[in-house]
Amino acid sequence: MHPVQVYDTTLRDGTQAEGISYSCEDKIKIAQRLGKLGFHYIEGGWPGSNPKDLDFFHRIRGYDMGRAKIAAFGSTRRPSVAAENDSNVKSILDSQAPVATIFGKSWDFHVHRALGTTLEENLVMIRETVAYLKSRGMEVIYDAEHFFDGYKANPAYALETVRAAGEGGASTVVLCDTNGGSLPTEIMEVVRLTRSHLNIPVGIHAHNDGEMAVANSMMAVQAGAVQVQGTINGYGERCGNANLCSLIPNLTLKCGIETIPREKLAYLTELSHFVSEVANVSPDTHKPYVGASAFTHKGGVHVSALLKDYKTYEHIDPELVGNGRRVLISELSGMSNLLYKYKEFNLQIDQQSPEGKRILEEIKQLENQGFQFEGAEGSFVILMRKAFNGYHEPFSLETLRLLTEMRENSPAYSEAIIKIKVGGQVVHTAAEGNGPVNALDNALRKALEEFYPNIRSMHLSDYKVRVLDEKDGTGATVRVHIETSNGRRSWGTVGVSQNIIEASWQALADSIAYGLLEGGNADKKNIDIEG
Amino acid sequence: MHPVQVYDTTLRDGTQAEGISYSCEDKIKIAQRLGKLGFHYIEGGWPGSNPKDLDFFHRIRGYDMGRAKIAAFGSTRRPSVAAENDSNVKSILDSQAPVATIFGKSWDFHVHRALGTTLEENLVMIRETVAYLKSRGMEVIYDAEHFFDGYKANPAYALETVRAAGEGGASTVVLCDTNGGSLPTEIMEVVRLTRSHLNIPVGIHAHNDGEMAVANSMMAVQAGAVQVQGTINGYGERCGNANLCSLIPNLTLKCGIETIPREKLAYLTELSHFVSEVANVSPDTHKPYVGASAFTHKGGVHVSALLKDYKTYEHIDPELVGNGRRVLISELSGMSNLLYKYKEFNLQIDQQSPEGKRILEEIKQLENQGFQFEGAEGSFVILMRKAFNGYHEPFSLETLRLLTEMRENSPAYSEAIIKIKVGGQVVHTAAEGNGPVNALDNALRKALEEFYPNIRSMHLSDYKVRVLDEKDGTGATVRVHIETSNGRRSWGTVGVSQNIIEASWQALADSIAYGLLEGGNADKKNIDIEG
Repeated sequence: MHPVQVYDTTLRDGTQAEGISYSCEDKIKIAQRLGKLGFHYIEGGWPGSNPKDLDFFHRIRGYDMGRAKIAAFGSTRRPSVAAENDSNVKSILDSQAPVATIFGKSWDFHVHRALGTTLEENLVMIRETVAYLKSRGMEVIYDAEHFFDGYKANPAYALETVRAAGEGGASTVVLCDTNGGSLPTEIMEVVRLTRSHLNIPVGIHAHNDGEMAVANSMMAVQAGAVQVQGTINGYGERCGNANLCSLIPNLTLKCGIETIPREKLAYLTELSHFVSEVANVSPDTHKPYVGASAFTHKGGVHVSALLKDYKTYEHIDPELVGNGRRVLISELSGMSNLLYKYKEFNLQIDQQSPEGKRILEEIKQLENQGFQFEGAEGSFVILMRKAFNGYHEPFSLETLRLLTEMRENSPAYSEAIIKIKVGGQVVHTAAEGNGPVNALDNALRKALEEFYPNIRSMHLSDYKVRVLDEKDGTGATVRVHIETSNGRRSWGTVGVSQNIIEASWQALADSIAYGLLEGGNADKKNIDIEG
Repeated sequence: MHPVQVYDTTLRDGTQAEGISYSCEDKIKIAQRLGKLGFHYIEGGWPGSNPKDLDFFHRIRGYDMGRAKIAAFGSTRRPSVAAENDSNVKSILDSQAPVATIFGKSWDFHVHRALGTTLEENLVMIRETVAYLKSRGMEVIYDAEHFFDGYKANPAYALETVRAAGEGGASTVVLCDTNGGSLPTEIMEVVRLTRSHLNIPVGIHAHNDGEMAVANSMMAVQAGAVQVQGTINGYGERCGNANLCSLIPNLTLKCGIETIPREKLAYLTELSHFVSEVANVSPDTHKPYVGASAFTHKGGVHVSALLKDYKTYEHIDPELVGNGRRVLISELSGMSNLLYKYKEFNLQIDQQSPEGKRILEEIKQLENQGFQFEGAEGSFVILMRKAFNGYHEPFSLETLRLLTEMRENSPAYSEAIIKIKVGGQVVHTAAEGNGPVNALDNALRKALEEFYPNIRSMHLSDYKVRVLDEKDGTGATVRVHIETSNGRRSWGTVGVSQNIIEASWQALADSIAYGLLEGGNADKKNIDIEG
């Protein structure tokens, strides 16, 4: 079957999900991943609605995005305003993105009720907006909002709207099931009929309000759509968008359709987890393909059949999407995770050696506590080094005291008093900060600076707190993740405790220890583990 | 179209989900709810595999289940054992349930690999097991395991297996997509072809491994299936079963098909939350129809259209399934979201009045600082109240001191010393905790308890920390979100500061102030803003 372009809108429609918002830095990081995986289009935001998005478009130009084209989203011009004078259209041009994705009304009801204009004026708005942006050198994709509802209400008019977009020069017309309530059979029929009236390629943009966004997208492709729009993990307004983490493997593995390059599929699970981490949303363990439970077997009948042949109870081989099989009867899962990590860090460790066994035990225990070494290679390497002889800690904690004071109508004040040992010497000092963790960071640096002057080149570039077991309220365990950079490269570290100060200390101490050990020149993939 | 029977397997297949297990009491409670809602069949367990399930079958006989029939699940007899001597078949009889649901193999590969018997013997096993249970007075439903995979591999044999069940006297043959990987178009075609070869009713049992279980079930019904099997919230092994909370309203509201009685649909949201509560699983807020975000609007364009007509961005009226509409205040929202909020809380606020202007100014400023009132209606209402005359704070902070100590090789220790004013009185007290925020929470409750005894009914059900502008490292601004519950309802509050203690204090103080103001009995839709 025909290849299908993957159009990601995690950074625009995905941010309409309740509880999700990204910083510009977050968006850049996600876009880079999508680029590496070979996505075709990455919608970066709506510059006309959210001025902060302009910053993203300007910064992203500095990165190599592979074949991915960056798209800026926006609406057709307002009624009775020339496209070149419309502020929304202007900000799309200001984005300097190569692609403009313009949405307009297909449903006569919406033209009257929401837009308050005439059916004829709406057609002109669509045609002129597309044509204007095209004349300014942009590729224009046209998102036909509420197309399926519009088609059901007034098919002739709905078709006129997408024809207007085609006349304006749109490269693709994307049929949107904006309210997410259409049935798979309706989608198939309407896509088929629409294609027979149009001479430009058609795409699909589905929402999940009937829990059928993935299936509806599949049906559209089977009816000839050549572009699928969706988001990582299906994040999106209300019940979400079509989940690309399911849609891509469905299309590729089940229908043999070319989407992202076949060899990139194995990074899908990692991508899903990365985006949920950045979004600060707990990953849904039961998500198809990429969820931790997606290939997890519990029932006795299933497991005994699996021991004979995996195909008995698995629809695909989990490794194809970078996921793994788990069986809920033993601790075998810990071992495979570890083997995976050894592989990832190029470590030649004999599992049967005393060191190998010690590391195994310790990692199992730490993971049970909530540690996660994904993205925390600094802490992982420190752990490895500690397991082998010949490791000298650059410093060790004696005592730490943190004080925070608040008074009515005055800002909070935090101060840290720290006593550490460096070699044979004891350093006792204090510092203040914006908050307790900042005070701790300042005090530790102050204490270490005279021994390790190059600590000045290291700075924390990211600090994240994730509450585990959120149901325990303020008594919950927290995981702190710190990213540190020395200007040339950066590394992550992690700490876990019920006490946020302790978790922060662990991540901070690892971050500095790793920075000092590596001296900033070791390649993280080729660490000399023998220290 | 033909009516469709709803067959619930929450208590059997649903318990195969990772992290879910029910006590017998839990199962009774869930079954009662399903009975009240007019489900047709309730599968209670697998007595032959889990002896504890027998207890359920015996106890459930004491309850009025409405029209619901209780089904006991089990496999066909083992190869070369007479049905009456098979322990699994015997325990189905022991259950004394009116219905037996028997699963057997349809896929030749499974007959050989998993069962280790001949194709012919498998047919005899199916026919005899069904016939034996029927002869003992039970209605027998036949679950054809892996039917779609089996049909793809060897259609003639797959058809023979379901014909054997029909010959044995099965009332319904249920076609199972056990590995969950089939496509909607395949399901439709195979159901249609199978029906043309069978003279008994056909049902569908779909799994969600391709994120299409609901759509696949819909396709089967459109191809003539008269029974749908699934679970509440889609709980089930791996990626789950077909979610009845989506499937039932899809069939009823979108296809006009009779499932459960129409007037019971309005209890679906409550049922979903009840089951997740019993399962001790956080409800997925983005679940179609029943999720807290299913009819939640964030984008300004959507909200401004909603103010004109709800139909513009909602596929159904949320009240039909017992859910409600929510509008979020966020960076993506405009003035229209605020106007909607005023309406929701019955606030007669003239935007041009001094109060209206003050609120608007303050919200703008707070949002610039990083506040997010989405999901923090507690803080929003407190803010509104403060903007009007006549609001009396239930308490105010004088001083707060937090101390955290860490020593080498001993756990961190946190303690809070707090001085607050309640009415004219000053309370000065202290408490310790797992970490600084927990200590603060404990100290505040301790100080307030004697004045507000119903504070004991409030507990924090969620505590989230989000670091804004992560590039600032440990000096970054953090946003704390707290969810508090009094057992009947819950509310969110928010705090923002560079100091995590201060941000936590803001969210905590709002959370308790809101809980006390509402007294747990005010309907949040009708708050008397005049204090």
